[in-house]
Amino acid sequence: MASFEEAETEETVTCLHMMFYHPFQQEKQVFRHLNFYKREQLRADEVAKFGRDGNICHYILVDARVSRIQFSLQLFRKLSGSELCFEIKNTSKRTKLTVNNLELGYLNKIDLPLKCMVGFGDYQILMHVQEGESVDFFETFLELSQVSLLQEQYLPSLQPISEHGISPLFYSQAINPVEKPVEMDENEL
Amino acid sequence: MASFEEAETEETVTCLHMMFYHPFQQEKQVFRHLNFYKREQLRADEVAKFGRDGNICHYILVDARVSRIQFSLQLFRKLSGSELCFEIKNTSKRTKLTVNNLELGYLNKIDLPLKCMVGFGDYQILMHVQEGESVDFFETFLELSQVSLLQEQYLPSLQPISEHGISPLFYSQAINPVEKPVEMDENEL
Repeated sequence: MASFEEAETEETVTCLHMMFYHPFQQEKQVFRHLNFYKREQLRADEVAKFGRDGNICHYILVDARVSRIQFSLQLFRKLSGSELCFEIKNTSKRTKLTVNNLELGYLNKIDLPLKCMVGFGDYQILMHVQEGESVDFFETFLELSQVSLLQEQYLPSLQPISEHGISPLFYSQAINPVEKPVEMDENEL
Repeated sequence: MASFEEAETEETVTCLHMMFYHPFQQEKQVFRHLNFYKREQLRADEVAKFGRDGNICHYILVDARVSRIQFSLQLFRKLSGSELCFEIKNTSKRTKLTVNNLELGYLNKIDLPLKCMVGFGDYQILMHVQEGESVDFFETFLELSQVSLLQEQYLPSLQPISEHGISPLFYSQAINPVEKPVEMDENEL
């Protein structure tokens, strides 16, 4: 084994933070198969799938209204540079997926903004990408919010979507701001 | 069971035709795990993976020089319309993937032109998409060529790549044209 002095310089790893909220998360326990507050590592060539079918999805949502595969995320590198980005794709025929205010239909996909609100049905997921160097792996870190994420405090720093000629759309559904949830780290804002 | 009169109107299915060539395909039998001349159906949300690792890849290349996953293809629908397209992604750290004349590095991806030449190492794959209506499935159809595909006859109808601001690059490596391979159907050209 290489000594500390000889070991390869440790790389930072791109981490996708996701804060989840569903209005009936207590009663329905829809998130009971998600591992919150634990970094999980995936290979860079893996597609992260979210949905009802545990045979296919790594991130399982226990809800009959959720599609077998609801949406998926893949890491890629832009042709124009070396930076790592995520792409999100709606794989549900029944439900639209919103990324900030943009609606994605079935099999539509888009580059994920560094910070954005993703929604489908009653589900709200606040995503933000912490950029890293490794091209071998990426990580996910899931948090749970006790309050709705449709609040002003989450909104000012949301990025517009301007990739591929789509006009910038800001997330603007500001609803009564309430207290900051206890799970939220100040560094996340 | 519904009668013929009552049955749903049959949909056409998007089919990705792929003609393979490797200079040592006879000696090395690198394609021995591919099912040639047989339509295979995949779910629209499946990622078609090509590479050495049979545990992950549906399309296996038996060659120590090929990466675990060499490249992958996914079906998607453009935001601007309802048409179905493929995206190709290079998942090999060692080898560049060329799509017509454009080089893709590791984790680079691009929309697949309707007709194009894909290459990596000594491998040549002439791909063309036969468009269909179904959003549930797509098909693949693999053929084997006995002669190199780097010939003039394949080139005139190749599409330039002009997606996302990349300047059009035509495939122009015309090498001694030879006779049309027997496997090639006239409709393919």
